[in-house]
Amino acid sequence: MKKMKHKGILIVVSGFSGAGKGTLMKQLVHSYDNYALSVSMTTRNPRPGEEEGKEYFFVSREEFEEKIAQDGLIEYASYCDNYYGTPREYVERQLEKGKDVILEIEIQGALKIKKKFPTALLMFVMPPDAAELKKRLEGRGTESQEVIEKRLKRASEEAEGIEQYDYIVINDKLEECVEKMHSLVQAAHCAPSRNEERIENMRKELEALN
Amino acid sequence: MKKMKHKGILIVVSGFSGAGKGTLMKQLVHSYDNYALSVSMTTRNPRPGEEEGKEYFFVSREEFEEKIAQDGLIEYASYCDNYYGTPREYVERQLEKGKDVILEIEIQGALKIKKKFPTALLMFVMPPDAAELKKRLEGRGTESQEVIEKRLKRASEEAEGIEQYDYIVINDKLEECVEKMHSLVQAAHCAPSRNEERIENMRKELEALN
Repeated sequence: MKKMKHKGILIVVSGFSGAGKGTLMKQLVHSYDNYALSVSMTTRNPRPGEEEGKEYFFVSREEFEEKIAQDGLIEYASYCDNYYGTPREYVERQLEKGKDVILEIEIQGALKIKKKFPTALLMFVMPPDAAELKKRLEGRGTESQEVIEKRLKRASEEAEGIEQYDYIVINDKLEECVEKMHSLVQAAHCAPSRNEERIENMRKELEALN
Repeated sequence: MKKMKHKGILIVVSGFSGAGKGTLMKQLVHSYDNYALSVSMTTRNPRPGEEEGKEYFFVSREEFEEKIAQDGLIEYASYCDNYYGTPREYVERQLEKGKDVILEIEIQGALKIKKKFPTALLMFVMPPDAAELKKRLEGRGTESQEVIEKRLKRASEEAEGIEQYDYIVINDKLEECVEKMHSLVQAAHCAPSRNEERIENMRKELEALN
């Protein structure tokens, strides 16, 4: 990760709770074969139905702090007395293989990543409008009114940072949105900074022909 | 054009002679309905088969200089005693309508545009390799060996400026390349700076819900 000369792109996806990030990312990974989904590590207890290595890697506080000490996380944060972080090894290995690696992180973590890895691609997923967001949060049927209100408040706070993202993606129709996210990644691959070798080769070849 | 608050994107396409820009742009405009192709103005004489308003607007030196005096061109340059320039009115009108306007300009003009309109999207079209470029130039069968050599020399010079473009596009398979160019424009539409109103609305809506 030191030089970020990998072919793969580090993609950070943020967005309001209820914006549909999870579904989008699953569909993206399913539809195209260039993606790898990073799984976060946490010290919180698994919820019913959550599987080790799928939603999270569940570890003890001691294990997590050892990871931190080893510089084994590319970012981490603490919420409500629990740690959450992104294991470095998986991300690095996939980027080296040329995979585009997707991290789902909230805005503070996203900005940390951007600082450490300026070539990371930051996307913010938004519902078409706030009413739709509320409807989706309520539609889940699993959350109390209090939780919904807390999330709307949090959304309002997160909305302050949208301009710091490279792109916003409106999650209106799933398929279109997945295609758009893929377009953004394809576009990033076309930046001159990601094609230095190709440009250099073209120059040498042209020199040789002249 | 003053504030560049148009919905449309100003797209500048450059690339080596023989890279296939013309075909690509025609196909792009044909395949999607959000594009408008800008036609340049020149003082050079029409070549056989060239039509007024299609390849160029053909005007007298006096007319061209009057356009310059009226600030009626967004960029212009002089080559081999002839003027070439981009009429402002058509570009502005199309951008205001929300069209993405494509200009084909060589590298000096492209960099002038970028300076004047920092939100312009600059694409550099490249053949897969230099040998392919030479083959394509020779394949036209219409150019003398001298002209081909001149173009290869020019390509070598232009290659020095590739890093100043936002994107490079490899013209290998026509359809794929057209799709890629379209992706780049779609991506540009997802930048927060092009969605200020939407972001502002979302913030207001969230405030109202909280």
